[in-house]
Amino acid sequence: MKTICDPLEMQRAALAWRAQGKSIGFVPTMGFLHAGHTSLMDIARPKCDILVVSIFVNPLQFGPSEDLDQYPHDPDGDAVKCQEHGTDVLFMPPELYPDGHATRVRVNGLTEWLCGSDRPTHFEGVTTVVARLFGLVQPTVAVFGQKDYQQLAVVRRMTLDLALPVEIIGAPLIRDDDGVALSSRNKYLSDTQRSRARTLSAALRGVLADVAAGETHVATLLETARTRLDADTVDYIEIRDADDLSPMPSVDRAARVFGAARYGTTRLIDNMALPLPANA
Amino acid sequence: MKTICDPLEMQRAALAWRAQGKSIGFVPTMGFLHAGHTSLMDIARPKCDILVVSIFVNPLQFGPSEDLDQYPHDPDGDAVKCQEHGTDVLFMPPELYPDGHATRVRVNGLTEWLCGSDRPTHFEGVTTVVARLFGLVQPTVAVFGQKDYQQLAVVRRMTLDLALPVEIIGAPLIRDDDGVALSSRNKYLSDTQRSRARTLSAALRGVLADVAAGETHVATLLETARTRLDADTVDYIEIRDADDLSPMPSVDRAARVFGAARYGTTRLIDNMALPLPANA
Repeated sequence: MKTICDPLEMQRAALAWRAQGKSIGFVPTMGFLHAGHTSLMDIARPKCDILVVSIFVNPLQFGPSEDLDQYPHDPDGDAVKCQEHGTDVLFMPPELYPDGHATRVRVNGLTEWLCGSDRPTHFEGVTTVVARLFGLVQPTVAVFGQKDYQQLAVVRRMTLDLALPVEIIGAPLIRDDDGVALSSRNKYLSDTQRSRARTLSAALRGVLADVAAGETHVATLLETARTRLDADTVDYIEIRDADDLSPMPSVDRAARVFGAARYGTTRLIDNMALPLPANA
Repeated sequence: MKTICDPLEMQRAALAWRAQGKSIGFVPTMGFLHAGHTSLMDIARPKCDILVVSIFVNPLQFGPSEDLDQYPHDPDGDAVKCQEHGTDVLFMPPELYPDGHATRVRVNGLTEWLCGSDRPTHFEGVTTVVARLFGLVQPTVAVFGQKDYQQLAVVRRMTLDLALPVEIIGAPLIRDDDGVALSSRNKYLSDTQRSRARTLSAALRGVLADVAAGETHVATLLETARTRLDADTVDYIEIRDADDLSPMPSVDRAARVFGAARYGTTRLIDNMALPLPANA
């Protein structure tokens, strides 16, 4: 495994591989890697000649009161995990943006709901960094986790709209044994908070069970789910169209349930696909 | 010369050429081609294996009260000119954007001055369409006219920031015999307006002469220039840093003079490089 820190060296290498007809798989991350991240590498690995993993904690996707300065990091541990999962290039730029950087990429619509309501500049930061990373890494395929399902939908929309010749793959969310979705931010939780955080995934699973039992009225489903969720703040629990994340009054087509909740200052998110109701 | 109308057919062809190691030159236009446009083709032609010219009147770069609906067109004449100047592919999509298109590319800073003040959404429309066209055409080199000097600077900034592997070339502005910069919009001018429009380039040439004669104080230069310009409205006459278009009180480094003026409803722009003053 080779480590590259200079963005332009990364691009020169990528263009050279592409000129040789090699395919490039790409897993962009913010580091502090866990089994969710390595599962993305395992999915990308058989789909490419060269596997690139990037680690860059992108300031543009953090709000002014968010955890940019405290974001956890473990570069040595990350490098071991990347190597164990077949990474060819670990791209770890100390600075990613050029002097005078002034360009922003924004996706309207999709970004205004769910996490976009609570984090108004977040997705513009994500699409801006992903567009630049795609330029530097020149991937033929890129893998994003369904844990950040809205982010995946936004990246798909951007990729389509900018006509970027990159296949975007959404990878299944990975959970710990207690049902909590893996996240680098789980590290912030106290034992008590972690125990309460289980109610987030449990509340979403409850929605799946209620739909399977025949309830399709979204307001009723969400009201019940809220009673099952123990958190300091519930940012949202919502049921949305699985493709465009638009609201729906009744579960009558492919849908997902999304939740975001805070434990102390730690904000966790989760989501699950709903079963199709019997009459759909 | 082949004509392609379908955006995805354009991209498939472009990716196939790139996979064969061929270089692609690109001249994006809005049609109604004149000698300014064909000069861009002549510059691109020796720098590429495949020369692509696009014609698409991009709604996103027109304001609500601008001339989108009246924009002149001459597809048959355009095709002849493209063929005469060595174009391999004329890309003429009736619709460029996919269903549900929601992505915008914006360059901050550079776009807030000059034409950006008078046309607040114009440059976002330009960068959004150019980013998508670059995705579809996969150019190795693209040529833009210095007539739209601010647009050229904005496209350069976007290309750098998104790490797009495209060489951007700025081509000299082409003028008619009477000094008026070639523009598709000159077609709108009456004989009287055309005659008055000559004062725009004349006023800018006057600034060059004044700098050459030793005047470097920007406010004085611009005050004199305004007295030489006959227009219904002067949107701006400005002297700016040639690289980042920032304001300067005194001509002490590479600079350009920019003008925008209206004759009836027709808005014309022009710009020229200033000589370096003797003491710079």
